[in-house]
Amino acid sequence: MKLGGFSLSTFPKGYKSCSLNAGIKDDTLDFTILFSEVRASAAAMFTKNQFCGAPVVVGKEHIADGYLQAIAVNSKNANVATGEKGLEDTRKVTEAVAQELSIDPKDVLPSSTGVIGVPLPVEKILTAIPGLKNKLTEDGLEQSAKAIMTTDTYPKFRTRKMGNVTISAMAKGSGMIEPNMATMLSYILTDAAIEPAQLQKMLKKAVDVSFNSVSVDGDTSTSDTVVLMANGLAGEVNVTEFETVLTDLCIELAKEIARDGEGATKLVEVQVTGADDHTVAKKIGKSIINSPLVKTAIFGEDPNWGRIMSTIGNSEDKVNTASVSVSFADVYVFKNGAPAEDKRAELAEYLKTDEVLIKISLGDGPGAATVWGCDLSYDYVKINGEYTT
Amino acid sequence: MKLGGFSLSTFPKGYKSCSLNAGIKDDTLDFTILFSEVRASAAAMFTKNQFCGAPVVVGKEHIADGYLQAIAVNSKNANVATGEKGLEDTRKVTEAVAQELSIDPKDVLPSSTGVIGVPLPVEKILTAIPGLKNKLTEDGLEQSAKAIMTTDTYPKFRTRKMGNVTISAMAKGSGMIEPNMATMLSYILTDAAIEPAQLQKMLKKAVDVSFNSVSVDGDTSTSDTVVLMANGLAGEVNVTEFETVLTDLCIELAKEIARDGEGATKLVEVQVTGADDHTVAKKIGKSIINSPLVKTAIFGEDPNWGRIMSTIGNSEDKVNTASVSVSFADVYVFKNGAPAEDKRAELAEYLKTDEVLIKISLGDGPGAATVWGCDLSYDYVKINGEYTT
Repeated sequence: MKLGGFSLSTFPKGYKSCSLNAGIKDDTLDFTILFSEVRASAAAMFTKNQFCGAPVVVGKEHIADGYLQAIAVNSKNANVATGEKGLEDTRKVTEAVAQELSIDPKDVLPSSTGVIGVPLPVEKILTAIPGLKNKLTEDGLEQSAKAIMTTDTYPKFRTRKMGNVTISAMAKGSGMIEPNMATMLSYILTDAAIEPAQLQKMLKKAVDVSFNSVSVDGDTSTSDTVVLMANGLAGEVNVTEFETVLTDLCIELAKEIARDGEGATKLVEVQVTGADDHTVAKKIGKSIINSPLVKTAIFGEDPNWGRIMSTIGNSEDKVNTASVSVSFADVYVFKNGAPAEDKRAELAEYLKTDEVLIKISLGDGPGAATVWGCDLSYDYVKINGEYTT
Repeated sequence: MKLGGFSLSTFPKGYKSCSLNAGIKDDTLDFTILFSEVRASAAAMFTKNQFCGAPVVVGKEHIADGYLQAIAVNSKNANVATGEKGLEDTRKVTEAVAQELSIDPKDVLPSSTGVIGVPLPVEKILTAIPGLKNKLTEDGLEQSAKAIMTTDTYPKFRTRKMGNVTISAMAKGSGMIEPNMATMLSYILTDAAIEPAQLQKMLKKAVDVSFNSVSVDGDTSTSDTVVLMANGLAGEVNVTEFETVLTDLCIELAKEIARDGEGATKLVEVQVTGADDHTVAKKIGKSIINSPLVKTAIFGEDPNWGRIMSTIGNSEDKVNTASVSVSFADVYVFKNGAPAEDKRAELAEYLKTDEVLIKISLGDGPGAATVWGCDLSYDYVKINGEYTT
């Protein structure tokens, strides 16, 4: 674990959690409850994948009124492409959790991550739930960040103070990562008092520049979910300040997801400026982050920048090639439509770093975006060639 | 070389070729001339990449009148992202070739493939051209198919007879392969008599279902070019029959490109049926072929079919998930919106084959498409991590 050392005072008030092994696949932590002592304002964003998981379907129903009191998450099985039975299984789990916690089933948001197309071992989960209320603790959030992992190599957890108010956020995700209007799984808990509508607006803005700006492999998961709960126990908060902190937190976690991308050895940041608008800038940035040719060159520490030019040239949007400039950090490889002075040796040295920054200027338009990804290594192939077998 | 044994009589009349080493990068064959004794009707399709190579720009000018007499190809350097100097270099090469062959420079189509962003070593090529006319032979086409290779592991060459008429076709391509309205490089020579306009129409149709239905890594090259020359020396031909043979030839070569994709161990064919139209079917087929998660699972011979469902679900087009069926060859994994009987053991056995067929039925729409690709292996990462260094 790269993180650690959080004390009780660094967590938001009134939240408890518990993670245990329900035996879904092996003997690691695979089932987690995040619980607020009081009903909390809540906002969420979900995957746009049309084969979304059963928990996403049920989660959308339960968040509709803007309130939640618990999140029930299992790893090791995504409960996706499981038909009508998958939906029934998810409802059984949320009902059992609600009964155990003496709350309304509609205030429980279910979430699942793991293999697709395998029925959820629902009996194992239902067996694990009774008695779980007594296992809830106030200092377990960091352990929960570990329990929701799949191929992640370390938990992603951050916490921030703003006066009386605390925001704690966890995320998981390592492969099948190109979130679209949401991320893999991220749960953000705060004790600030904020109305659901405002919460949803802030979450949407933060997610656009963080989780939705990350891609490991261009595959949008069927289970992407980010949930923000605000139980109000720490009172009012300066909304502008809260939004800034929330966005920073989401960006930090999003970068962790890219850095910990399956098999990744380097975090890649692409800054696009001078585009016609933000959407174009983001699309071009994402295409660089997703190009297997660019990704393997970065893995190989090979300054083969022609592949970046080719990827930009494939944009659906019109690019004025004569005004394009590209640099690695501050070393230009292409300037105003023509190759820059050859600095391959310097670039090869730069590429030995574990954080690669590519800057692309498309001209003098107002559109800009920053996106994050990672390189493509032998280990990505290994991890994904052997996932279910 | 997997192919071979072609005799002079299997080549179209009136074409000569020559391949030699001009010393562009190392001592392998890197410069090729394909020459017709008489001016030939010609059709061509080029990449849509906005950073297209200098030879593509000049090639478009030279094919504009519908006639060509020679194609001059170099490998090891793409002459892309090389600015104004790149265009001048290409024109110098076509002019020198035209002078050597005593033909109009406008009847020479230039073509380059290799690294992007490195100036063409034009002096080396210009030095190699004088005296080249005497080296032209009538039986060298297969050697030319070898000379245009970059990371290909074997030459791609096919020839077909239709009565008096012969069509010979070569192609190269192994990485940066997702042709868009053209392929990497393919040159098709025939002695049939066909007008340029008709030739272009036939080529466009054939390319759509062949080269433009292949993807190795989703990256459309800056150099994609397919050229069809018809010098008429064998006389008239049944146009319908010719079109069928041309299309078959293009499909065979396209499949070879996928089979020989960088690092590939398996050819993957995806057949999509029941879509609203051909475009939707092709887009969904391509998304499966390009998913790194699907590709690595196939490399690992892991029947992790949930990744196919996830990829279908990410389609921009509306999918009626309840009517989707998916099979590997004839073994269903998903039928009418629900998982089929679990046959993972049988599937694992099937995946040991070196040609994997995935069939996707989206419903009862009229749209269908077949696309080809390959798996994603350790060797793809190795080849592309070490390309220029």
